[in-house]
Amino acid sequence: MPDTPRVTAAVLIIGNEILSGRTQDSNLAYLAKTLNEYGIQVVHARVVPDIEADIVEALNALRAKHDYVFTTGGIGPTHDDITADCVAAAFGVELVISEPIAELIRRRPSPPEVMEARMRMARIPRGGGLVDNPLGPPGFYIDNVYVLAGIPRVMQQMVESLRGKLRGGAPVRSRSVTAHLSEGQIARRLGEIQQHFAHIDLGSYPFFREERYGTTLVMRGTDAAALDRMLDQVKQMIIELGGEPTDLLSG
Amino acid sequence: MPDTPRVTAAVLIIGNEILSGRTQDSNLAYLAKTLNEYGIQVVHARVVPDIEADIVEALNALRAKHDYVFTTGGIGPTHDDITADCVAAAFGVELVISEPIAELIRRRPSPPEVMEARMRMARIPRGGGLVDNPLGPPGFYIDNVYVLAGIPRVMQQMVESLRGKLRGGAPVRSRSVTAHLSEGQIARRLGEIQQHFAHIDLGSYPFFREERYGTTLVMRGTDAAALDRMLDQVKQMIIELGGEPTDLLSG
Repeated sequence: MPDTPRVTAAVLIIGNEILSGRTQDSNLAYLAKTLNEYGIQVVHARVVPDIEADIVEALNALRAKHDYVFTTGGIGPTHDDITADCVAAAFGVELVISEPIAELIRRRPSPPEVMEARMRMARIPRGGGLVDNPLGPPGFYIDNVYVLAGIPRVMQQMVESLRGKLRGGAPVRSRSVTAHLSEGQIARRLGEIQQHFAHIDLGSYPFFREERYGTTLVMRGTDAAALDRMLDQVKQMIIELGGEPTDLLSG
Repeated sequence: MPDTPRVTAAVLIIGNEILSGRTQDSNLAYLAKTLNEYGIQVVHARVVPDIEADIVEALNALRAKHDYVFTTGGIGPTHDDITADCVAAAFGVELVISEPIAELIRRRPSPPEVMEARMRMARIPRGGGLVDNPLGPPGFYIDNVYVLAGIPRVMQQMVESLRGKLRGGAPVRSRSVTAHLSEGQIARRLGEIQQHFAHIDLGSYPFFREERYGTTLVMRGTDAAALDRMLDQVKQMIIELGGEPTDLLSG
């Protein structure tokens, strides 16, 4: 059984608009899927408001506990964009102007007042590096904390620019199968199968579609051969309980 | 200026499927909007995997810091449904069978093995109460922690059943206006307006729609008169900067 060390990440979503329900976050799901391709598993996420004390506390708790922290939101030019300030405070360093970012910002001419506001986006914590962004000013990183935009399209480009640049372990693969059986019907047998595969996570997700109840079973782990063996056992169980296993796309 | 004490909540989303990106959470946004109607402001959220230590740690951190904690997920009949166990562990109490829930579960006949699995859903922490659920077994609460289903349709019914039963403060109202101005253009003036309204949160959200850049400005607070005054100032600012303020629906 392969035992590659797991590389973990936490996601920190910064923004009052997520906590008010005004904006539906989609960045967490995107980060989880894409980082898994890089061999990094998102194991925790937090959503905090645009309040410095809350952001700094979350940053320090998460960066101590996980290999990586990815933040989204709060890196624009307005007064409520305080992520850079908070990251600097969390690391106890000052903000400095990144000359490459400042140069990019200056290329688009603006009246002095507007330029001054846009220049806020050139501030990064001393000792930090840049995260490329083909759609605008770069994001940045310092140590294990990566600071990304909140706008999904921009955030996605930034994550794409990190492909191949982050230390990862083995990506988690999944196998899924669906049956029109209730969770109650499969619960005992499913628990028994789970006990035989300690390194695979077996999740059970009930649904109600086209007027029928059913359950989707999802196996996740890094060992493809073990996943296939477990999938066979789960399908066998479904047949023995009178159901019909339906394959889903595997990852 | 009204100064009703703020009533706050944290949301704890439990489930590997959210952290793997397989499922897009929509419960946080729903809870944020509905609880605000009840006078409760969601100010923090966490997503944790189906791991007892992680769930217990999050529960204890959040219930100490907020007036309410609402959890979603992990209350079904299968081996990965461990929320009730974790809540009991966090409070240091044992799980007991809730006779009203057991009675409901027994009403639908099942083979003994299936009934045994379904009976897991009747377990609640000693001292807890029930959260009504017209679609299946009730959720439960203990002290300030409310334990809800993960399936959105079921979760929503449970939250609806709590309407009028929770202690709330003044609901947060909002005013919104949009203009085709960049964040850079409005940043300085916006910061000045924010300084005049300490009790109102003024958020700035850039967008790119129909090939044009723009910014949505959202004011949130409990004082309707102050919100209206701030909205007037923001609209005036937009006009002075050469933009055209477009009203959005207010809440």
